[in-house]
Amino acid sequence: MTAERLIYLPLGGAGEVGMNLYVYGYGKKGRERLIVVDLGVTFPDMDSSPGVDLIMADIKWLAQRADRIEAVFITHAHEDHIGALPLLLPQIEAPVYARRFTGHLGALKLSEAGLATDVLKITEAWPETVTAGPFKVGFLPISHSIPESAGLVIDTPAGRIVHTGDFKIDRTPGVGEAFDDDLWASIAAPGVRALVCDSTNVFQPAAGRSEADIADNLERLIAGASGMLAATTFASNVARLKTLAEAGKRAGREIVLLGRAMRRMVDAATETGVLTDFPRVLQPEEAADVPRDHLMLLTTGSQGERRAASAALSRGKYLGLELKEGDTFLFSSKTIPGNERGVLRIMNNFSERGVEVVDDNGGAYHVSGHANRPDLAFMHRLMKPKMLVPMHGEHRMLREHANLGEEAGIPSVIATNGMMVDLSGDRPEIVERIDPGRTYLDGSVLIGAMDGVVRDRIRMALNGHVVVTVIIDESDEVLGDAWCDTMGLPELGRSNAPLLDVLEEDLSQFLGRADAKTLRNDDKLEDNLRRIARQSAANEIGKKPEVSVVISRLSA
Amino acid sequence: MTAERLIYLPLGGAGEVGMNLYVYGYGKKGRERLIVVDLGVTFPDMDSSPGVDLIMADIKWLAQRADRIEAVFITHAHEDHIGALPLLLPQIEAPVYARRFTGHLGALKLSEAGLATDVLKITEAWPETVTAGPFKVGFLPISHSIPESAGLVIDTPAGRIVHTGDFKIDRTPGVGEAFDDDLWASIAAPGVRALVCDSTNVFQPAAGRSEADIADNLERLIAGASGMLAATTFASNVARLKTLAEAGKRAGREIVLLGRAMRRMVDAATETGVLTDFPRVLQPEEAADVPRDHLMLLTTGSQGERRAASAALSRGKYLGLELKEGDTFLFSSKTIPGNERGVLRIMNNFSERGVEVVDDNGGAYHVSGHANRPDLAFMHRLMKPKMLVPMHGEHRMLREHANLGEEAGIPSVIATNGMMVDLSGDRPEIVERIDPGRTYLDGSVLIGAMDGVVRDRIRMALNGHVVVTVIIDESDEVLGDAWCDTMGLPELGRSNAPLLDVLEEDLSQFLGRADAKTLRNDDKLEDNLRRIARQSAANEIGKKPEVSVVISRLSA
Repeated sequence: MTAERLIYLPLGGAGEVGMNLYVYGYGKKGRERLIVVDLGVTFPDMDSSPGVDLIMADIKWLAQRADRIEAVFITHAHEDHIGALPLLLPQIEAPVYARRFTGHLGALKLSEAGLATDVLKITEAWPETVTAGPFKVGFLPISHSIPESAGLVIDTPAGRIVHTGDFKIDRTPGVGEAFDDDLWASIAAPGVRALVCDSTNVFQPAAGRSEADIADNLERLIAGASGMLAATTFASNVARLKTLAEAGKRAGREIVLLGRAMRRMVDAATETGVLTDFPRVLQPEEAADVPRDHLMLLTTGSQGERRAASAALSRGKYLGLELKEGDTFLFSSKTIPGNERGVLRIMNNFSERGVEVVDDNGGAYHVSGHANRPDLAFMHRLMKPKMLVPMHGEHRMLREHANLGEEAGIPSVIATNGMMVDLSGDRPEIVERIDPGRTYLDGSVLIGAMDGVVRDRIRMALNGHVVVTVIIDESDEVLGDAWCDTMGLPELGRSNAPLLDVLEEDLSQFLGRADAKTLRNDDKLEDNLRRIARQSAANEIGKKPEVSVVISRLSA
Repeated sequence: MTAERLIYLPLGGAGEVGMNLYVYGYGKKGRERLIVVDLGVTFPDMDSSPGVDLIMADIKWLAQRADRIEAVFITHAHEDHIGALPLLLPQIEAPVYARRFTGHLGALKLSEAGLATDVLKITEAWPETVTAGPFKVGFLPISHSIPESAGLVIDTPAGRIVHTGDFKIDRTPGVGEAFDDDLWASIAAPGVRALVCDSTNVFQPAAGRSEADIADNLERLIAGASGMLAATTFASNVARLKTLAEAGKRAGREIVLLGRAMRRMVDAATETGVLTDFPRVLQPEEAADVPRDHLMLLTTGSQGERRAASAALSRGKYLGLELKEGDTFLFSSKTIPGNERGVLRIMNNFSERGVEVVDDNGGAYHVSGHANRPDLAFMHRLMKPKMLVPMHGEHRMLREHANLGEEAGIPSVIATNGMMVDLSGDRPEIVERIDPGRTYLDGSVLIGAMDGVVRDRIRMALNGHVVVTVIIDESDEVLGDAWCDTMGLPELGRSNAPLLDVLEEDLSQFLGRADAKTLRNDDKLEDNLRRIARQSAANEIGKKPEVSVVISRLSA
């Protein structure tokens, strides 16, 4: 008889920042009952995923075990934790638990996707708990950069797991719940078997700062601005929005929210009661009547997203509003690595318009939502766990966090996506490796990252595309010549003749020489035509394009 | 009779960091004699220039005035100043002047491109000058992050221009010439009409540090490392390479240079005498016999370039060498904005191998080659120019630099690529705007950035590509059905039938209904087939692909 075991399996978010999806299991090996924590997305980029809309974990492992899934828990409403809810839930079919604000946004996502929302169960914070098979799970309020974030207290027959979710130690967060030392200490009191902990800011050496620490700086900046003023931050950072809007109001400015996500978040926070006293906002069309030095815009797109309000404003008029010489644009945000180009483009666009751009300026106008190294060490001391499992971070972050744990005498493990960890023993032990994989939302279709679809797009982007068409008649003779169509290739090459002519000439020469056996065999003919087209292009333009061959056979 | 005028026209490098190319002219309007300063490249990215090899300024304005070009001057051998020499010089056909080390590398580039090298004239430093039409030009040694950088003293009938080139104020640069206050003061003494000045680091508030400031840090780090040690920096930063190699030697390590650019730079610096006493290096194949804790690798690819030595090492064995648990990899470099993803990929790869990664650590292991804000102000005070023209920077940098000048009472101008500035008067005045443009090296072909070639590639990358083939017989009837070929699109869509089948069905239905007039008209037929294919795909997979239509008409 095998013993029960307690397992942890990250399918997303461990070895990267994004698309969080963690699985816990308890039971006999291979028959564990499962719970899922978070269903997040990550965002595509041109380098590796052009044309893709969203990226999420491949959950075939879970889908094959759908009958063993007890529940899904969503820690908070950031897209990298909730964004895949409408996309992946159909494969999971389990109740989803979340706190009020998170659940409100989750329900919006489900209903927009045409899915039923009654699967969503709103749960109060600890000490309320949800029983899900062998698990008893409670939402423990924790400070982060979005309202109602929660860590999870996961009680199992093998002991207590504390899954921090994303967090910082903020005792004056502005909006929402302050970090509650006594509450967290009370959770630790009975003993914590495993602390599964956010690693994002482990390389930040100084203790994190509070949302309250920047309020005065923002107030001064906003009070001193002339002309129109616009500020961008993450739409979900409701505390920041409130600080900005209130400072704007005090400086005699009317507030306009620009960007769908901004309005949605303020509405959701207001409707669920986490946000009170948010200043009245004007609609963009009402702003036309307000003198420009009495306006303050709060805009989406702090990460340089081309279609968001900040980028649109940087290019010119947007919904009738336009920033000009003497106006100010504030990034109350930090640029996430990889987004620098888009952010710099906005800054330079504004510079061309004479708009003064202010960035976070070494932290004066932004604080992070994640715990820095000393804050992580504080959490370790507070929880006194038997073992530490760093999550939510690139490999180098998990590694550094595990080192931090080991230095404090806590057995720690580096487990990236697909590594199943047994938490039942004295130290975390990797017991199995699942091929983790990624799923892309591409238009309206879910495709596998390794299906080859995106690889082909990247190849066309790098090499261009040639289509070769050949018609073969009823007696296996070539009818006319081969002809070509190119996309993404120069018109003229080395010989200064049109590339198309050179390709068609070389292909027709081959067809003229080809024997009947070749002409009868589609595969052989296609291989030859592709090879010749690539070689011909390489001679002419110095690159080998992707080649599609279309052979049309006329039937007798 | 119009008066002579002195003009400045940036064609690259002003409004961006990269592809520097500046033109000066003197003479009657429209008949100015011209000199060119620098022929640089910039590097492509997947977002805006997939598949492109190099980017440089579009010089049709210059090429149309080739008979008026007296000479080209290259300030230093960084790729953004010399990289386009073999690509653009054929359109310019003028002598090229450079100092010894720069000229050596320039000659290598020309001969590798099969071009004559006798166009290159090696010039000694100031007080030697070159007479080029109405200009007398001297190379003034200045400290930067590559040997033998030079500012240009450009004497004209309208007065003296000082073109700084890239620079920092470094009085202890390790290799090459220290900044010489007396020399620069002597240049200023007769009066400077215009200072055309590097703007890259204008947002750095503290005075720049010397190459010598990090030598002790590097020495300590290298002496303390166990296992194998690898360090990356720009190959052209010969001073850094020497500091690293010497510290390695003192720690009892053999030095191996990995990456073609690294060997080329050390060879060039040694052959031209700017580098002496560089430690003897081992070939990679000799390193096999050396214990790993007696090895130090100097590797190319500090910016995360996938094909360079650093990235190759991060993926595994490279030329027989491999970094493992307990080894150290040092970035003695700063990540240029936009390159973060590639650099992080290397860091995480090494993390997975257990290799300790050390980055510049807030400046401990790297100093910039560009003058910071206080250093720029120092240069302004030293030169006392009548006017300031900020160059070499994004728009926001030029703007900030111009503000700095104006605050000090120096008339300043923001002139980006294509803006011709008249320097003859009391303050710089923009007198004409040239459409600046960019040229791409794509394989072996030069294409215009706006030719549409790269736009089509980006569209295929985002949307996929459908090829529709239709055969029309001698009597303008459709022969068989339409058929499709897709690339970069999912196989199955909403209806769970193959996408190809759905597309072909929809197209064939249209063809069955199409009237004779449509079938006779290629353009009309093509438009209709494209529209239907796009709409059909939109229904099935939620995206509208690029569509190429191939209509084959059988002649009677």
